[in-house]
Amino acid sequence: MSKYYDYAASTPVSDEVLAAMKPWEQQSFANPSASHHAAVDATKAIQRAREKIADEIGAMPSEILFTSGASESNNLAIKGIAFKHLDEKGHIITSSIEHKCILNTCSFLETLGFEVTYIAPDSNGVIDSTSVMNAVKDNTILISIHHINNELGTMQPIGEYGAIAFNNNIPFHTDAAQSFCKAEIDVDDMDIDMLSLSGHKIYGPKGIGALYIRDARDSDIVPLIHGGGQELGLRGGTSPTPLIVGLGCAVEAFPEDKSLQHRDFDGLIAEFDFKRNGGERLLSTTWNITFSSDAEVKRFFSKHEWLVSQGSACNAMTNTPSHVLTAIGLDESQARRTYRISLPPYQGSVS
Amino acid sequence: MSKYYDYAASTPVSDEVLAAMKPWEQQSFANPSASHHAAVDATKAIQRAREKIADEIGAMPSEILFTSGASESNNLAIKGIAFKHLDEKGHIITSSIEHKCILNTCSFLETLGFEVTYIAPDSNGVIDSTSVMNAVKDNTILISIHHINNELGTMQPIGEYGAIAFNNNIPFHTDAAQSFCKAEIDVDDMDIDMLSLSGHKIYGPKGIGALYIRDARDSDIVPLIHGGGQELGLRGGTSPTPLIVGLGCAVEAFPEDKSLQHRDFDGLIAEFDFKRNGGERLLSTTWNITFSSDAEVKRFFSKHEWLVSQGSACNAMTNTPSHVLTAIGLDESQARRTYRISLPPYQGSVS
Repeated sequence: MSKYYDYAASTPVSDEVLAAMKPWEQQSFANPSASHHAAVDATKAIQRAREKIADEIGAMPSEILFTSGASESNNLAIKGIAFKHLDEKGHIITSSIEHKCILNTCSFLETLGFEVTYIAPDSNGVIDSTSVMNAVKDNTILISIHHINNELGTMQPIGEYGAIAFNNNIPFHTDAAQSFCKAEIDVDDMDIDMLSLSGHKIYGPKGIGALYIRDARDSDIVPLIHGGGQELGLRGGTSPTPLIVGLGCAVEAFPEDKSLQHRDFDGLIAEFDFKRNGGERLLSTTWNITFSSDAEVKRFFSKHEWLVSQGSACNAMTNTPSHVLTAIGLDESQARRTYRISLPPYQGSVS
Repeated sequence: MSKYYDYAASTPVSDEVLAAMKPWEQQSFANPSASHHAAVDATKAIQRAREKIADEIGAMPSEILFTSGASESNNLAIKGIAFKHLDEKGHIITSSIEHKCILNTCSFLETLGFEVTYIAPDSNGVIDSTSVMNAVKDNTILISIHHINNELGTMQPIGEYGAIAFNNNIPFHTDAAQSFCKAEIDVDDMDIDMLSLSGHKIYGPKGIGALYIRDARDSDIVPLIHGGGQELGLRGGTSPTPLIVGLGCAVEAFPEDKSLQHRDFDGLIAEFDFKRNGGERLLSTTWNITFSSDAEVKRFFSKHEWLVSQGSACNAMTNTPSHVLTAIGLDESQARRTYRISLPPYQGSVS
């Protein structure tokens, strides 16, 4: 019987999240944008979810916009800034090991005439903040670098990028899909102007996420989805009350203690010969490991019939080594022996 | 006790849809983009939903892309075409009574230098196809006109628009959020190249919809959400298996018979003095009615404590008469006495 250890790709929906969603699917299902009182309850429930998310990252509820997930949030943040500068274009700083949705967004913007600097990581997967500082130009319009790398679990020094951005009057965006609730985040301390997050990495539903935007009401970010005035006019579409309430519940249920230890796993993996990639500052639940030989790979999987990822889920459709593993210097043979084992963020109750 | 008659704004999730979603929330929750076998089941379930939707409109499964809802689908369709022509710009034909998400998308494109013709309806809310034909220019890149009007219930002659588009080699997009499953649609017979649809108008979940794109694989439409290769590379983001399966189930559960009669309501409303707006070809479940006087409004609502809409849900946040009512010639006093009563699309089972 195979066991699932791909929690960085997705988690199940916890019992409490499912229970929290239920009343909004059948009893109080009104469109939250309607004017009658059935809609008011939904609007209030959405507001409570906004407060929980805002609290988690030290933001204001009015700075949280709901989206369909981190990919949409990332697109909204980057294109939302870029499209403000469509006439004169500009320069964007990111890293070469972002999630594909960011890299593909940046490639698209390059075809429109924007310039993008992709900062390479060191062999530990860390994006050095000095490189970020050196990349800043007069026409830099955005710095977008992720918080925790999805394949490696490496935690980037986002506070340092934020300070550079702040000192140069450039907005700073971070993709926190892998870190939200799992690592400490304070948007003020870290000078974060925009932050993307996702529900289905923390026992919340798939199809819901959010984008934090500093002073969203006064931001003149260009919407990705123009609509009927929802989310301050910055994101159209009927607000999916059950999904939003579910995301709020998932945030509330996440343990305060961020240490996320898995002692059993530490002992279990110790008997194999491998190198853990990603440097010193790692999310304890994401293990990116290169086995020493094909034989060791075989020995591991014959003993542990685990469902794990080679690369991240989103690269799985191609057969080439992931761009992240290539960027930290692994050759094809090493990449083939490399797996991401991602443990549950905590033991959520799942029936 | 007030009764909900705002089903054009949103429906509850039916029992069978909820039941169909459940296994994908907890048991088979893997990210459908992963390479391990837990993901294969999800991919197959998503494919089955794609087939059901395709069947409903006479399309191929590979021509259905999942989105977060009709607003995103509309944005993707229109911007997806427009962005192919960003250098040389071009001309778009739409109507003045589209959903706000389309009108706001078009306004945005105007700020980028595109030209938009907004065809006004006649006093019945019908967009005459001769006006569409007369609006075609050498540089028209898209015709986008909705199928059934959300406020009036008026069914537009989309087959006629489709034929005009086909004969002039222009792509034709229709917003079918209000008509999908409720009216006959055949994308080939009607020469439809793109069609937007939504889950939560047919007892499916909120937060899910789709865009039909003719020959999607070969279309060079520009993605709205760049991502990790999902949905033929045209729409990024983790596929929300439960929502997609729920949408498929809602389509399957919808009755074949599209007559959607509500005889009780016909009798009940007959005792009041009102004019039903929207002409002859109306969705039987959407009643847009202007009461003859304020007294008659009062008499109706004292007898029937119903939750209904003034304008559509998405206009509810403003206090001005809706753009649709203004477009069909209602003055402010008439608009104030006008309500949309929308009956359930069918009697779905809701616990």
